[in-house]
Amino acid sequence: MPSDPTPHSAPPTAPARHRLADIARALGAEAVGDTTIEVTGAAEPRSAGPGHLALAMQPAYAEGLAEGHARAAVLWDGADWRALGLEGAILVARPRYAMAHLTRTLDPGPAIAPGIHPSAVIDPSATIGAGAAIGPFVVIGPGAQIGLRARIAAHVSIDADAVVGDDALLHAGVRIGARVRIGARFIAQPGAVVGADGFSFVTPQKSGAEEAREAVGQRGTVTAQSWVRIHSLGAVVIGEDVEIGANTTIDRGTIRDTEIGARCKLDNLVHVGHNVVLGRDCLLCGQVGIAGSARLGDRVVLGGQCGVNDNIFIGDDVVAGGASKIFTKVPAGRVILGNPAVKMETQIEINKALRRLPRLMQRLDPRRKSVSNSDETAPE
Amino acid sequence: MPSDPTPHSAPPTAPARHRLADIARALGAEAVGDTTIEVTGAAEPRSAGPGHLALAMQPAYAEGLAEGHARAAVLWDGADWRALGLEGAILVARPRYAMAHLTRTLDPGPAIAPGIHPSAVIDPSATIGAGAAIGPFVVIGPGAQIGLRARIAAHVSIDADAVVGDDALLHAGVRIGARVRIGARFIAQPGAVVGADGFSFVTPQKSGAEEAREAVGQRGTVTAQSWVRIHSLGAVVIGEDVEIGANTTIDRGTIRDTEIGARCKLDNLVHVGHNVVLGRDCLLCGQVGIAGSARLGDRVVLGGQCGVNDNIFIGDDVVAGGASKIFTKVPAGRVILGNPAVKMETQIEINKALRRLPRLMQRLDPRRKSVSNSDETAPE
Amino acid sequence: MPSDPTPHSAPPTAPARHRLADIARALGAEAVGDTTIEVTGAAEPRSAGPGHLALAMQPAYAEGLAEGHARAAVLWDGADWRALGLEGAILVARPRYAMAHLTRTLDPGPAIAPGIHPSAVIDPSATIGAGAAIGPFVVIGPGAQIGLRARIAAHVSIDADAVVGDDALLHAGVRIGARVRIGARFIAQPGAVVGADGFSFVTPQKSGAEEAREAVGQRGTVTAQSWVRIHSLGAVVIGEDVEIGANTTIDRGTIRDTEIGARCKLDNLVHVGHNVVLGRDCLLCGQVGIAGSARLGDRVVLGGQCGVNDNIFIGDDVVAGGASKIFTKVPAGRVILGNPAVKMETQIEINKALRRLPRLMQRLDPRRKSVSNSDETAPE
Repeated sequence: MPSDPTPHSAPPTAPARHRLADIARALGAEAVGDTTIEVTGAAEPRSAGPGHLALAMQPAYAEGLAEGHARAAVLWDGADWRALGLEGAILVARPRYAMAHLTRTLDPGPAIAPGIHPSAVIDPSATIGAGAAIGPFVVIGPGAQIGLRARIAAHVSIDADAVVGDDALLHAGVRIGARVRIGARFIAQPGAVVGADGFSFVTPQKSGAEEAREAVGQRGTVTAQSWVRIHSLGAVVIGEDVEIGANTTIDRGTIRDTEIGARCKLDNLVHVGHNVVLGRDCLLCGQVGIAGSARLGDRVVLGGQCGVNDNIFIGDDVVAGGASKIFTKVPAGRVILGNPAVKMETQIEINKALRRLPRLMQRLDPRRKSVSNSDETAPE
Repeated sequence: MPSDPTPHSAPPTAPARHRLADIARALGAEAVGDTTIEVTGAAEPRSAGPGHLALAMQPAYAEGLAEGHARAAVLWDGADWRALGLEGAILVARPRYAMAHLTRTLDPGPAIAPGIHPSAVIDPSATIGAGAAIGPFVVIGPGAQIGLRARIAAHVSIDADAVVGDDALLHAGVRIGARVRIGARFIAQPGAVVGADGFSFVTPQKSGAEEAREAVGQRGTVTAQSWVRIHSLGAVVIGEDVEIGANTTIDRGTIRDTEIGARCKLDNLVHVGHNVVLGRDCLLCGQVGIAGSARLGDRVVLGGQCGVNDNIFIGDDVVAGGASKIFTKVPAGRVILGNPAVKMETQIEINKALRRLPRLMQRLDPRRKSVSNSDETAPE
Repeated sequence: MPSDPTPHSAPPTAPARHRLADIARALGAEAVGDTTIEVTGAAEPRSAGPGHLALAMQPAYAEGLAEGHARAAVLWDGADWRALGLEGAILVARPRYAMAHLTRTLDPGPAIAPGIHPSAVIDPSATIGAGAAIGPFVVIGPGAQIGLRARIAAHVSIDADAVVGDDALLHAGVRIGARVRIGARFIAQPGAVVGADGFSFVTPQKSGAEEAREAVGQRGTVTAQSWVRIHSLGAVVIGEDVEIGANTTIDRGTIRDTEIGARCKLDNLVHVGHNVVLGRDCLLCGQVGIAGSARLGDRVVLGGQCGVNDNIFIGDDVVAGGASKIFTKVPAGRVILGNPAVKMETQIEINKALRRLPRLMQRLDPRRKSVSNSDETAPE
């Protein structure tokens, strides 16, 4: 471990080289021109060097090729690669889908050394699948089971009796709670927490919040009470091919388990409360919050910062635009937006109308104008 | 530490067994029928096995009992347990409150081994209370004080001169900053951070944001300035019986301390800014954000994703519905909703009116229809 | 490491002492009276002891001085320090700016011991700058480069080929991903994650969400498809003097790098998606979310819980009030508010009008009143 006063001189790890023909094969696409060209990575057309594969999958990106130095590029179906000054090319029909295969091919993957780092603390009753790679300072509790070829980065903790499936990839600092069960090919970004205790409290008598819910904002005499904890006896069950983002949190259930269906993808800083059930193939963008006991169907897509009320059901194939706040159940297939969320077309009409509302109001009710400033001093 | 190619075979840790009579006593409730039945856990009626205590605390859940295999259940007051096919039962008056006692009885708790793990790095000047359990790779700084029987899981760090009270439970990866002082029975879920630096910056001259606040959106010539950091000299002081959620963050104060009152409960991914003062018994749901120097009274309940503006005061017993954005002070006892938050009844009336607004607008002002599309291209 | 049944008795680490004259010099301000008075920290006037420097930078705070016990205070320009009962004082013109210098002077800083803790796991190919302090259980990967005098607290992980600039301060549990490059004087609060994979998925055919975007909420037959992962080949590049908050997450780019301009400040729990470009001197408050490929100009200020749509551009000097949801591009210099965000003055007019809307609606359209309850049962 060198101590060096000029710290910016170490050469980076040498990247792998890929032949154009091999990349095309992985993409199920057509390679043209000199398919023996080797590249070490992909780049945008303008910033591509001679060792890069330029990505210019739409005609709009083509002009950047002249500025950059790529010898080969991925182009849209039917592009004239010679006219673009290239020596070789890969032609693709659905660019974004091609990106999935292309980036997988070129991804060097995380640098988790094979084998079990000697500093890891693994309970003797835990079982570790063959081929698993376990990094420094990992802690694995009693009865835990780690699948074949799982890759577990530094500082991960996996609590008692948790099960992590084959080919899992747990990045640094991920927390897997006791008795959590996770299917194959799970990916967790750094700092994600699966199996924290649910947030469930009760007052000895009815609380003000309970009354307000029941009576839509009305309530009787407020009594001073403290919160008593409801412990979480359930766990979290996660299907196959799920991915969760950095610092995302998924709470355990109270009696039954919180469930995340196969192939769900959760972005960073997402909150999934206790007892929630997500169907399959759901996509939850950054900072989405799902309150306790809500259920989502299959293929639900929630834009960033959406919120879902507790105990409601969101049907299959619902799509919610960014920052939608969903208070009530939503039928299958609906596209929604807004706070509170309504049909997207309705919300767009409402938003247009809102821009015109102040002028309309003044036209209809000019006397009120002078009063309106005081309306703003408090939520009343 | 076995390396095993068939990793899913280890038997889970054997759970504790509880007699029906003992559970009833812990709940302060009545046990009927065969009170010697032993259970190892609770389950929903439908999925309960013969070793489970089924939870059917409302008549609506009763039918599931026939499908499941429970011999004993927790039922609502006055239920006919024999007619439901049970051999024994516990009858409770306020089901959710019974849940608190029941789940506490059945919770096996986190598997933190007693004693201090040899890998922990504890400064010689720190003091550790008798009976404390400290997990692998924990780091405790100089002058820190850990209470009696505290349980501290793997990868927790506790910085210099911090005080953690008796019977604390710090889950994996919790961060306690320097000089933070925390009362007894504190619970922190994985990844929670107490005592990060406050977010406080200033420009040499007035910034555009300051001008915009003072003049409600108007401002003069914009000058290019950079932010200068205001350091956080204060700490965080937390009362007794507080619980905070996974990856929740509480910042230290600038000069004085940020304060969290006794018995407050904070859910996951909650943000509490510098100098904030929370009263007692507050409940902050998932992803709530409290900006710097805001103050909350006692028993304030904020639904998920609520936001509280900086420097404002929220009175005792205020209840805010999910995703409420609170910009101005709120009188005690008020129930509020919306962005900006107003009285809940008012918001519900506004929401109803909004659904009808586009049609009304067109009726009153049909000429504008064709123009409205352009309204959407930019926030103007 | 003592095990002590009375854990609350250890004396805290002795704080440094500062002379009034020295503090004034650091502030570029005038010291008056007995400038040899020594203080160990700052305090609010009311709670100040004789060893504290009281902060009473506005006349409103002056009365607290009589209640407290400070001998010296920082006062507003022109204050009569003798009449306030003080023995010495520092007079400042712009109080918040003075706070920056004052708090920097008095901040004891994090207690990261000099040198490299023997438990740290540092790859032999990593380079560590002279004077760097590296705490317990830190993991530094192959090819990583750590700058001069960097301070790295416990449980930090820095992946392969990452570069951390001179004088960085990484608090406990920070995660720096592979190939991330960070400029000098970077500060990361506990749990922050730089360089998680981007959230980028694609379906083999067009998805329901894609259709809904293109057709503003309309879509054809829904087909069941699963998500295919687009890997993140890019990294994150961070300029000089950047600070990011606790548990904040910044994703790597897909092909190019995500970019954070010099001197940007990000609060806690902020989410920055893949390919995002932040200009210089931006300020993002708590829980802000920036979706993938959005670009911000210089000096953009976003209040707490703001959201920025993917692929849009926010011009220089834009200021957004708390909880603004920005769906479309915003011209330079604009001050905006609301969901969807519009000009702040417009939003304030809209908010006023909304309070009056239910009454207006009833006046104009009284027949509908009885129907309106049913409007609320579902987002429709």
